[in-house]
Amino acid sequence: MKGMTNKNQKTIQIFDTTLRDGEQTPGVSLTTDDKIEIANQLSKLGVDIIEAGFPSSSEGERKVVKDIAKLGLTSKICALSRATKKDIDAALDCNVDLIHVFIPTSEVQMKYAVNLTPEQVMKSAVESIEYVKDHGVKCEFSPMDATRSEIGFLKKICMAAQNSGANSINIPDTVGIMIPKTTAKLIEDIKSVVTVPISIHCHDDFGMAVANSLAAVEAGASQIHVSVNGLGERAGNASLEEAVTALHVIYKYKTNINTRLLYSTSRMVSSLTGISVQVNKAIVGENAFSHESGIHTRGVTEKPLTFEPISPELVGRTRKLVAGKLAGTRGIKAELEEIGIHPNETQLSEIVKRVKELGDKGKTVTDADLIALTSAVMGEVIGEEKIVDLCDMAVVTGIKVIPTASVRLTLDGKEHIAAETGVGPVDAVLKAIQKLTSNLEKIRLSEYRLEAITGGSNAVAEVIIKVEDEKGNIFSARAAREDIVMASVEAMINGINKCLLKNRKGIKK
Amino acid sequence: MKGMTNKNQKTIQIFDTTLRDGEQTPGVSLTTDDKIEIANQLSKLGVDIIEAGFPSSSEGERKVVKDIAKLGLTSKICALSRATKKDIDAALDCNVDLIHVFIPTSEVQMKYAVNLTPEQVMKSAVESIEYVKDHGVKCEFSPMDATRSEIGFLKKICMAAQNSGANSINIPDTVGIMIPKTTAKLIEDIKSVVTVPISIHCHDDFGMAVANSLAAVEAGASQIHVSVNGLGERAGNASLEEAVTALHVIYKYKTNINTRLLYSTSRMVSSLTGISVQVNKAIVGENAFSHESGIHTRGVTEKPLTFEPISPELVGRTRKLVAGKLAGTRGIKAELEEIGIHPNETQLSEIVKRVKELGDKGKTVTDADLIALTSAVMGEVIGEEKIVDLCDMAVVTGIKVIPTASVRLTLDGKEHIAAETGVGPVDAVLKAIQKLTSNLEKIRLSEYRLEAITGGSNAVAEVIIKVEDEKGNIFSARAAREDIVMASVEAMINGINKCLLKNRKGIKK
Repeated sequence: MKGMTNKNQKTIQIFDTTLRDGEQTPGVSLTTDDKIEIANQLSKLGVDIIEAGFPSSSEGERKVVKDIAKLGLTSKICALSRATKKDIDAALDCNVDLIHVFIPTSEVQMKYAVNLTPEQVMKSAVESIEYVKDHGVKCEFSPMDATRSEIGFLKKICMAAQNSGANSINIPDTVGIMIPKTTAKLIEDIKSVVTVPISIHCHDDFGMAVANSLAAVEAGASQIHVSVNGLGERAGNASLEEAVTALHVIYKYKTNINTRLLYSTSRMVSSLTGISVQVNKAIVGENAFSHESGIHTRGVTEKPLTFEPISPELVGRTRKLVAGKLAGTRGIKAELEEIGIHPNETQLSEIVKRVKELGDKGKTVTDADLIALTSAVMGEVIGEEKIVDLCDMAVVTGIKVIPTASVRLTLDGKEHIAAETGVGPVDAVLKAIQKLTSNLEKIRLSEYRLEAITGGSNAVAEVIIKVEDEKGNIFSARAAREDIVMASVEAMINGINKCLLKNRKGIKK
Repeated sequence: MKGMTNKNQKTIQIFDTTLRDGEQTPGVSLTTDDKIEIANQLSKLGVDIIEAGFPSSSEGERKVVKDIAKLGLTSKICALSRATKKDIDAALDCNVDLIHVFIPTSEVQMKYAVNLTPEQVMKSAVESIEYVKDHGVKCEFSPMDATRSEIGFLKKICMAAQNSGANSINIPDTVGIMIPKTTAKLIEDIKSVVTVPISIHCHDDFGMAVANSLAAVEAGASQIHVSVNGLGERAGNASLEEAVTALHVIYKYKTNINTRLLYSTSRMVSSLTGISVQVNKAIVGENAFSHESGIHTRGVTEKPLTFEPISPELVGRTRKLVAGKLAGTRGIKAELEEIGIHPNETQLSEIVKRVKELGDKGKTVTDADLIALTSAVMGEVIGEEKIVDLCDMAVVTGIKVIPTASVRLTLDGKEHIAAETGVGPVDAVLKAIQKLTSNLEKIRLSEYRLEAITGGSNAVAEVIIKVEDEKGNIFSARAAREDIVMASVEAMINGINKCLLKNRKGIKK
């Protein structure tokens, strides 16, 4: 897009609340180190404001906000505060750039969440904003549950906030009940009575947080509250990665975000919070740039734009073609070529047929399945090329038992034995395998992923691993078994074989 | 809402594509039995049309569409077909109510996906629709990639489709690049040239599939294509549960959906496809009706509407309050009361303090943690009430080793030993535990859930189990450990203790 930049292009402020509303995600608790790591990444990513936490909620929270404010990041640091002196003092103590003061303004929340009359709410808001400003700190004001507030009172409190010195007014759709049309109308209404910058904070209870945030921008909001992976209370907030990519690609607006860091940021937050991103999540989900059906794989191998809205590289990702019963010839050919296998036309069409048969039986076609049936079709060619093969394995764990594993492998046909301990049985056995194969080449397990298991304790576990060789090439492999340990081992062996096969072929050429 | 029904209320047709576009989700393959189970559920749920599959893609697919058409469901059954005689013949062979014929109409897709000129596309579309109609079957026509098609050509082909007898025209946003405003405008444009019912099929590449579908309805579309859990190619389709709930709650439109079955349908589809729903997904995500932060838990225990857009029961769910560092006193009190523990004021405030301390350390506060610290605060009262306690455990698995586990437990203070085999180590040990505890009361493991693990092989695994007693009461428990086997055992023991404690207290009273 270089050279196309238009000076009049609108720049939208990105206010990130991953560390505040995101941490309110039930089940999430981040350590100080986690929060600092995320704050550093958010600043690198280019968010304008980082809402670092809610200092009055606990001693630890106060300390972490303080620590983040000390980092000297490019992003401005904000702390959340109720409209009380005690809360604001806690926030002031953290030396942040900005304090985000909120108080409910809807009838139901004034009554049941804080038990105050509208007059009391108005008074607290005004006094709190003035108190923040008196300390020389910027203030963003949020009338909580704005979208269910009586519009007359809402306008009145926004005007009062501006008069008290609020630097910006944020409109929270606290329970996520807006649609783009009503959001735009509300922002226009607020803009008709105040001149300070308007921000929006959406929740995704009906799946419309991103669309509502963008509708607010269309109506004149200059800032959006977002979170990485859409984390937050209940169904979460507007997802940073979706909203920002849409602003850039669809609206041609600017933000200060480096979109190429979106995927790595999403992975980091998912890993530190322990909250997985579903495979079919936009932009950062495992499948967002994966293609299975024949028509689609044919199209994207010919010209990616055919079935992709944006180039995956724009958000720091790569394209993936997946074998399956709907897969076409081209997709499977591309997948095999990726691992250095080149079947002829007749072989390929037989492979495709067998993949479809497997899929019809309801089986997910794993890499091992694809290689196994390709081997069969191509006359065991691939089987012969197996460098590492597992012969025996035993794993024990228990109470007062250090998880221990032993493995017997053949490396290029020669037998080797090793034992290792680990934090659990999977860790122990993967370490034992790596101990042996490291004799051949330094291959490191760079990612271990076990898909969520739902159902019974006998449900199939799917493991996806990524191994990395010394040159930084990454190979992924997957396996699916009822036994979690066996699935992990199979995936690991597959990954190592892929890596070794590819590297040796490279050497031969 | 009974009694409030308005005869002029618009009824929106729900066209479900879980079994077609949903099955194109990379990694998903359903068996015939799975598809039939889902089709039955969709019909019970009340979808108007079930797109059962793409008969020409494989022999198995053709058979399953045929089988679904034979079920005699209330929902109409539809088959997908390219605009070719061969495909339509495959669809006709399945005896479906409706054939959904598609052909690309955008320049990029005409050229690279099918290699046809616009004239050839027009001819194929017309001939195909006529061919379907000549066989006395209804036809829905989709100009694929409509949203990137030249508007003049798009209007022309829609008019031609109507003249050829198409019963409805569906507008696919194939690569998900629309926003609500542009969607509404496009639907208005199409409606200005045709009179047949208009449908919309959105993809979620920028997270706006639901908002776009609803904008299309606002602009006059009378049908939306949706899928359970938003499954589908790449980031998937508009999520059925989000779109339908928004239509009912926000728009006050009617559909034939029984919203109380939304959650169970989502769980079934997630379990059969193996695709998990992220915890922060709207309507059906684990957290959609969970509350952690103090302000929120206080509000919802007082009056749910304070922080909930809808009653969870409307979509077949219940509210959950979660302990955590941001949790307030009321939330934790409610959680403890649920398991029959009633701390006094002083004890409660000490428990809350300790929960916050634990959270500040970055620890997810599990049930076991909450019980452990409550025990400590309340003077071991809870610890004494532990009915089942694990003393020893050993688990082995490997190659040519039947996964085997032995456990030593105390039941009411008396020691018992048992061994069991299973499909994997977790299965074996949970079976061994159940074998022993079934002597006390018939308790069944009704759900086992292992959260996805991302990171290294030494990452913490979180297990959530649900156990069910003879009366059908369900108790859930969670545990988090680096060793998957140990986490599973701990969760199971916690669940059984919860169940036994509750039932005995019930007897005492």
